[in-house]
Parts: sequence; C-alpha cells; structure tokens
Amino acid sequence: MKFSHTISLFSLIFINIFIIKVDALWPIPKKWSKGISTLKIHPSIKINFNNRFSDPFIQQTIHAATQRLQDFLTNEKFSPPNKNNLPPIDLTFKILESLNIELHTENVELSLDTDESYDIWIPNASPLLMTLKAHLRAKSVYGVLHGLTTFSQLIYADSGNDEMLIMPFAPHRIFDSPKYRHRGLMLDTSRNYYPVEDILRTLDAMSWTKLNVFHWHIVDQHSWPVASEVFPELSEKGSYDPKNMIYTKRDIETIVHYAKQRGIRIIPEFDMPGHTAAIALSHPEIPIGTMQYAYEPPSGQFDPTANATYAFIDKLITEMASWFPDKYFHGGGDEVNLRCWYDAHKVQEYISLTPNTTNKTNIDDDDSEIISETMEPLVHKFVTKQHEIIRNQGKIPMAWQELIVNQRLNLGKDTIVQVWNGDDNVKRVVRAGYKVVSGPAGFWYLDCGHGNWLGNYVEGNSWCGHFKTWQWMYSYNPRNGLSDKEAELVIGGEVLLWSEQADATNFETTLWPRTAVTAEILWSGNYDSTGMTRNVREALPRLTEFRFRLVGRGIRAEPLQPLWCARTGTCDRP
Amino acid sequence: MKFSHTISLFSLIFINIFIIKVDALWPIPKKWSKGISTLKIHPSIKINFNNRFSDPFIQQTIHAATQRLQDFLTNEKFSPPNKNNLPPIDLTFKILESLNIELHTENVELSLDTDESYDIWIPNASPLLMTLKAHLRAKSVYGVLHGLTTFSQLIYADSGNDEMLIMPFAPHRIFDSPKYRHRGLMLDTSRNYYPVEDILRTLDAMSWTKLNVFHWHIVDQHSWPVASEVFPELSEKGSYDPKNMIYTKRDIETIVHYAKQRGIRIIPEFDMPGHTAAIALSHPEIPIGTMQYAYEPPSGQFDPTANATYAFIDKLITEMASWFPDKYFHGGGDEVNLRCWYDAHKVQEYISLTPNTTNKTNIDDDDSEIISETMEPLVHKFVTKQHEIIRNQGKIPMAWQELIVNQRLNLGKDTIVQVWNGDDNVKRVVRAGYKVVSGPAGFWYLDCGHGNWLGNYVEGNSWCGHFKTWQWMYSYNPRNGLSDKEAELVIGGEVLLWSEQADATNFETTLWPRTAVTAEILWSGNYDSTGMTRNVREALPRLTEFRFRLVGRGIRAEPLQPLWCARTGTCDRP
Repeated sequence: MKFSHTISLFSLIFINIFIIKVDALWPIPKKWSKGISTLKIHPSIKINFNNRFSDPFIQQTIHAATQRLQDFLTNEKFSPPNKNNLPPIDLTFKILESLNIELHTENVELSLDTDESYDIWIPNASPLLMTLKAHLRAKSVYGVLHGLTTFSQLIYADSGNDEMLIMPFAPHRIFDSPKYRHRGLMLDTSRNYYPVEDILRTLDAMSWTKLNVFHWHIVDQHSWPVASEVFPELSEKGSYDPKNMIYTKRDIETIVHYAKQRGIRIIPEFDMPGHTAAIALSHPEIPIGTMQYAYEPPSGQFDPTANATYAFIDKLITEMASWFPDKYFHGGGDEVNLRCWYDAHKVQEYISLTPNTTNKTNIDDDDSEIISETMEPLVHKFVTKQHEIIRNQGKIPMAWQELIVNQRLNLGKDTIVQVWNGDDNVKRVVRAGYKVVSGPAGFWYLDCGHGNWLGNYVEGNSWCGHFKTWQWMYSYNPRNGLSDKEAELVIGGEVLLWSEQADATNFETTLWPRTAVTAEILWSGNYDSTGMTRNVREALPRLTEFRFRLVGRGIRAEPLQPLWCARTGTCDRP
Repeated sequence: MKFSHTISLFSLIFINIFIIKVDALWPIPKKWSKGISTLKIHPSIKINFNNRFSDPFIQQTIHAATQRLQDFLTNEKFSPPNKNNLPPIDLTFKILESLNIELHTENVELSLDTDESYDIWIPNASPLLMTLKAHLRAKSVYGVLHGLTTFSQLIYADSGNDEMLIMPFAPHRIFDSPKYRHRGLMLDTSRNYYPVEDILRTLDAMSWTKLNVFHWHIVDQHSWPVASEVFPELSEKGSYDPKNMIYTKRDIETIVHYAKQRGIRIIPEFDMPGHTAAIALSHPEIPIGTMQYAYEPPSGQFDPTANATYAFIDKLITEMASWFPDKYFHGGGDEVNLRCWYDAHKVQEYISLTPNTTNKTNIDDDDSEIISETMEPLVHKFVTKQHEIIRNQGKIPMAWQELIVNQRLNLGKDTIVQVWNGDDNVKRVVRAGYKVVSGPAGFWYLDCGHGNWLGNYVEGNSWCGHFKTWQWMYSYNPRNGLSDKEAELVIGGEVLLWSEQADATNFETTLWPRTAVTAEILWSGNYDSTGMTRNVREALPRLTEFRFRLVGRGIRAEPLQPLWCARTGTCDRP
C-alpha cells in the first residue's frame, strides 16, 4: 500500500508537469498531455485530407483552412514573448512529416447542436519511428477547423533556422470539446458603422478563440445600414451613408459565408419594437410611437396598435430571414418604453376602443402601475405577432431578457433568452423554462468605463460602470448559483460591444484581447481538470502569448503589461 | 444715456453672434470675430512669404509648413459631421486669391519665452474688392505655424464643386496667443516601445492642437531604448530589442528637428535616482540599490553613496544634453524609495562611516521616520550633484514634485517642478517659489481606468482611478485656488501617457481626441472672453468636428458619440 501511494504521488507530480502545466493554447483544451521532445516542422508540411464525403463544402472549407494554416506556417514565425516557455534548442532533428486529417461525418450544418470536438495526436520524436505523422480527428468539419487552430498555436519559429519551425513539448495528445454550445460576440453596427473588412477580420480573430456565434446587432435607432431590397428606402434614408456605410445583400452573403468557413454562425438581430427610430427617416408614415421617452436620442418605437406595423415587419423579417441562414433570428425586445406608447395619441385612442383595457387619462407622470397595466398587453400583442412571423420563416427567436423578466410574456419554450444583467435574472429565466445566453453588463460589456457619451454631462459615467478588466471578465461564471439541472439551460454566453463610443478607429483594441477571455470561459469553462476555479495567475502568461499571436496576425490587441513583464512573467502582485 | 445703453446692448448682441459664437477652431482663439459671407478657395491658393530675414531655418520651416497646408487643401476636403455648422451653399463666387505671411522677427529660438502669438485677417466677400487677400502676421516663425494651423481649420470642402474649397463666415479677424507657455504631452517610451514614425505622427497631431512640448519620458526601469554612444551597452542589453526597439542619435535628431519645425520643444527625461533598474542589465557592477521595494517590478535605484554613480551620470547626462537642444532637461526624481536604500548593505556601511548621520540598526519595518531622517540627506546629495551636472551643460532642470513636496529640497529657483497630483501640491510648490507644470493624475493621466497591470490581481484597479473622460479633463484648471501672483508661477501643464498598458497598438486612440482637451485648456484657458468658465456643452460640437479632422488626417482618434449625434448635435443630456 505504501508503495502504491508513492506511485500515485509520482504520477500526480508527473501529471502536474506534463499534463496540467500549460503554456500556450488559448482557449485551453479540455484534456491535453504533452511531453518533452521538440519536433521540427517545415512550412510546407504535407497536410492530407482523405475526403470520403461528397459535399463540396467540406472539400472547400478544409482546403481553405489548411491554406490558412500553411500561410501561418510560412509567414507567422511566432516567437513567444517569454522565451522561458520554450525548451532550449534541441539539436536532434526529427521532422514532423505530415498532418493527417480524419473527418467522421458529412453533416455540414452549423448549428447549436454541431459537434465541435476534435482530437490531436502528435508523436514523440522517437528514434524508432521512421516518419512522424500528426493526426487530427473530428466528428464535423467545424471540429476540424478548431483542431487546425489549436495545431497552429503549438508551433513557433525555430530560432536556429529561419527556414524551419518547431513544435516543442511533443508528444501531444489533445481531446477537446467546448463547455458551452453558444459562444458569441455581439457587435452593434448601428450607432457607428464598421466596414465589411473590419467584420471579416474580427471573424478571423474570433475563430482563433473558437467563438462560434457572431451576434450581429445590425440595426438600431441611430442608423439602418442594412440595404433591404424590399424596402430600399430604409438604408437610403436611414443609413449614415447610402453609398459607403451600408451592408448589401452581397456583403451579408460574403460575411455569412466567411463566418461559416470559420465555424461561426451569424445571428442577426432586428431589435423591435424599441430602438427603431432610424426607420422613421424613411417611413414617417409607418407607425412609430412618440419620439419621447425611449432610452436614447433619437427615440422612437413601433406603434403596436397599427396594422401597417405588422404588415411592414412581416415583409422585413421575411426578407431578412432569407438573407441569414441560421436557425435562430434575434428579435430584440429590450428596453421597450411603455411611457413612450402611453403618451401617444394613437395608442390612447386604441386603448379606449379596446374592451377590457383600463383607460385612465390625466394620470401622474410616475403612475407606472397604470402604464404597465395598460401597455404590457401591447408588448404581448407585438411580440406574439413578431415571433409568429419569425417562426413562419422556419426560425426560432432569440429575445432579450426584458420580455421574460419585466413583461413576463409566455414565449415558445425553444426561444433563447439573452440575459444582460444579473445572476438573479439568469435564474429567473431558466426557472421559467427558457434556454439562456448570458452576457452580463457588469462583466462582459466591453464598452463600459469610457464615461457617458451624452453631451453636457461632465461627471457622467458609463451606465454600466467602470472598465471591465480582463481579470474581472475571467471571473464570471454564466452558471453561477444554479442547480445542475438549471445550469443545463444556460447554453452559452456572449461578450458585447455597444458602439456609442466605438467605431473602426478603436473597436479592435476594445475587443482584443478581452474577447478572448470570454471565449476561454465559454470553451473551457470556469474550472480546470482538477475542479479548481481557473485563475488569472495561470491565465496571464497564456493570454499574453495569445495576445502577441493576435498582434502578429494583424489584430490590434492591446498590451496587458509592459513588454518586460510579458517576457519575464514576473510582474505578479507580491 | 439711454441711447448709448441701447447701442451697448446692440453691440453686445452683435458680439454674441459674430464674436462669441464659435463652431470650428480647436483650440479656440483668444479673440475671433467673424462674418456671414463665404469665400471660395482654390487648393493652389497663392501663399506669399516675403522673407526679410537671412536665417535659412525660417525659409525652410515656412516653406515646409505652407507645403503641409497646401497638402491639406489638396487632399483633406473636409466636410464637417454636422452640416448645420456650415452656411447654405453660396452662389456668389468670390475667390480668396492669396495668403500673405508677415513675420516680424528673425529670432528662431524655440523656448519657454517664444512669442507664439499670431493674427489673421481674412476679408469680406465685398463686391468692392477686386482681389481678396488673407493676411497672417506673427512675431515669430512659431506664431506663423500656429496661424497656418488655424487657417487650415477654417476651410471645408465645397459641396458644390470638387475642385474648390470654401471658407465660410468671412470676414475673419483672429488675434490669438496662448494662456500658458508650457503645453505638453508626456509619452513613456520605456514600459513599452513606440516606433519613430508613431512619435512623428503624434508630433503632427500635437501641432494641430498647438501643444508645444513633447516631454519624452524616454527611459525607465523596464527598458532603456536610447542608443547612447558613450555607453552603447545600455541599449544593447537594456532595450527590448537592440536592433528594432531603440532610438539612435539619428532618430533623436530627426524627431527634434521634426518637432521644431512644428513649434514643439522636446524635453527629454532621464529619471533618476529611482526608475533606473534597466541600467542594471548592462551595468550590474555600477551601483544600483537593492532590487527590492522600488515601486514597480523590476525595481532598483542608483546607489547614492558610490562615486561611480556620479561618474556614470556625469558622462551620460553630458552626452544626452548634447543630443537634446532644449534649454530644459528633466532629471526625474519621482518615487525615490528610501526603504530600498535603507536596506542596502552598501548604504548601511556608508551611513555608519558618515558623521552626523543617525545610524540605527534593527529598526521596525515601518519605522519610516528613521528611514526618512537617514535617507533624505542621500536624496539631497544625489539631486544636488545631478542638477549640477545638468547645469554644467547649460541646461535648467525639470524635476518631479516629490523633491519639493516630500524631500523638501532646496533646488535652484529656476527649476521647473512638475506636479502630478493635487491642487495642494501645486500651491505648496509655487509657495516654495518654483515654476510649476501641472499634469494631475486625477484629471490628465490618459492611462487610468484600464485596471491594474500587475498579475494575479483580479479586483485591481488603476492606482489613478477610473478613466478620465474628456469632459472631466476639460474641467481641470491648473491655477485653481491660487492668488494672481501664485498663478503666474504655474507656467503650464501636461497630459500624460504612462505605457504599462499602452503600446503602438492602442496608444493613438488613448491619446486622441483627449489630448486635444488638455491642449485647449492650456492654449485658451478655462474662461471664455466673457469670463465664464468654458463648458462641455459649447466644446462638444467643436471637439467633435476636430476629432473628425484628426481621423481625416490619419490619426486614430476615438469617437465621442454615435455618428448620428455628431451630425445632429442633439444628444445632450435632457
């Protein structure tokens, strides 16, 4: 017994050194064992893919992905900031000859239920093996993409030979799959506009962190950049520039295709009935609520009482649903301002015509109970109709938390509800039986901490408080305080950038590297393989290295520390 | 009497409309009257400079500046975000034929005492005038540069004619001069490195805001990028990359010349005796204090007891003083850690050998009184010697506040003391008789609000608190609470970027447009011509327009608001 204890202890140490110790990969794989030998790799390493399947998308996607890998091998020549993370130069010269990709299904659907797992086997530099071959296996083409991303992060410049690369710490054995199914980044392209190439570059960086949802908050009250072909006047009058600051059908096709080739779903959001003022610029006659009291200037909401509203959104959603192939379609539903409706003459008229609806005039400004009582049925009416339209297109709605938390609507139970604040609200929504995607303002809103954007407001802070540091972001657990059964309904999360104070000039440093932090929590979970909560001490050197990879790959990711700290890893708080 | 009252009232209204109302210029001129006619300008407008002076620098500088102006006229084609700020298209076609520059002295020294004033006279589109000529007059070549900068901001694209430009609101009459003589931006190029071209671009943007000092915090504990020729080992071992991340003598000459051609002085800072750890990498034998207790990793200070220290700094300062022509030379002096010295064996030895110095061993860790008593004479010794070396080179020292506020040294009364926190400390230093440059951490530190950069520190905030919003920065008055006589000693201020969390990826959006806010306070002062405190409501549309000019000129200045707000100017807090 004593002896076996010794062995356990030994293997525990062994595991600590060779399995738990991690340096490079971000997000960190579920299981990863590594060794102590260093392989050499030629940039033109043979990559074999035996496509047993007929789908041309598979062939094309894998081909493009291996091309990207080979571009990295040729051009990246990555040298980590902290050289101590690499082994000393290895004078043996074992070359990894090939990477063999095995794909196990031909299903190419990219959805919430896609199997994204993969595993990688990279051999030891054993003198017994004549040729060294790496293997990447996955159940779906998207798993292959994740595996290639991981593979690329195992490779460094060979400081002794410009022509070659090295892969230290072989043999590698990686079994990897995500903790959460919905791992998103939300970008608001209405308050300020982003050129298509900025979105494409963002999709690239997202794919390197294994994020799989680009939640495109494409329109809002400030501008309407989508060039609808059914209602071209929407962007002609409602975009910031109908020539240069729009997204055409073709742009959207490009983005959707580019994303899918990187394992990323595009979920568009057409936020309603609030946040719709930009529509008034082209459709002043189409019902919009009063221009007061909706949360930001310019304010305005759909009139929920008019038939024309429903005719309009039916056509609009039908067109947009055909542009965005994803199964989910975000209908918004946040920050509906009931007072905005209550004060509108047309709504007042409607109420007085509708039986069983309280109608009191001359109420006090703050008589919010009466406003709720009379207006909430209108939210219900609107959302019911809107979701029906979405479902008629074969889609499932996503919706903001307010519809459940504030308006307590009964939505279809397959609706995904996006919670933007509070563990309590996550709990409330899962207890109501809905799937939850959590992206809390207090942790994962990247725009916070830049002061208030309203004019004439010296002391104004961001409504969502101060800057969310990467360390603070890393501490958020989307399933905090839930039972196991409740936790299952939390299918993922999102990191969000609202664009009041962001545009093409500064969004990239605002996104990166912090977006990667959310990506790791959502891919790898909050606990390591020993059940300990992941901590910033272990994460910092990995995140630092990943940040330098991002910069090397052309992403303006901001620095976390002085370069001296990145290189030495010795700037932890004493 | 009643009649003359009426006239006064009328002229007051007139002044309100035509003098006080401002739209475009940033920083705002001291006096500016304008009219209601719109002139046309051809990009190749004649610019005449009758150089009565022999100095080739004048000829070269004015030539280069007018060339830059003509590049703007040709390429900028600036259209303001808010079209309402422009008059309606004017169908008259009065062309401004020429800009005539008059220079009134041939002194080309750029110093604290340079006369930077200028005035601009632009005629009305009067049908009586056959040819319209603009005049720019200044007492120094640097005043001319500021005048050309102002001139360029009066010009917009002609929406009716691609080939032409317009200058609305003629006639213009501008009398302008700065409130403060020292208007600086400090950049720390040690914690992270900035390529030379980034510094040059920053100097361009600075000149557009009429800042006149680039305080170059060139070295610090993290890296030593200056390629000294006397001590080449300093950058060979102490820079982040002795090939690509250094500033050579030639780089510095380029930067100094580029800056002077834009009216900007370069004041280098060689911070001592603290913040010098990077020197230990090449001079482990040269006296450095213990590696503990100095504020940031890597810590280390000069040993103030060793003769070798003084021999070293004599040679170093002598060389650097010859590279930087400015009259002022910043010797640092902040955050000297007395405990760091007290614990050093060599210092302990020295104390016991020095008569009249208390020497107690085995004191308590927190017995700061004894540490101060025994170590402050060493600060005195060091700084006295250091300033003597600086003065031997014909320079006047700048120094951080600690030397006065904490160590209560008696420095030469011409020393400029840089205060980095608190109105109280400004007061203390001016009462001690020193000139003050104020750049308070609580208002003008651009790096604050990004969390703590130390590792393993989840909840760590910036030591200097939250993000400094432009509105908050605009509220700072460097002469707050001082008598008129005291106020005179406050000769200026600086906005500062420490680079723990900044490098080439993100510094530009961190600098701009907020640096322009400090620039306006320092050029235009806190009060308008009626004596009212300048306010963010008036400033926002001007700053917004200036931000778009910056972006158009290739500076990544971050957005203040959604474009919708910038265009309509209607997003003030209700």
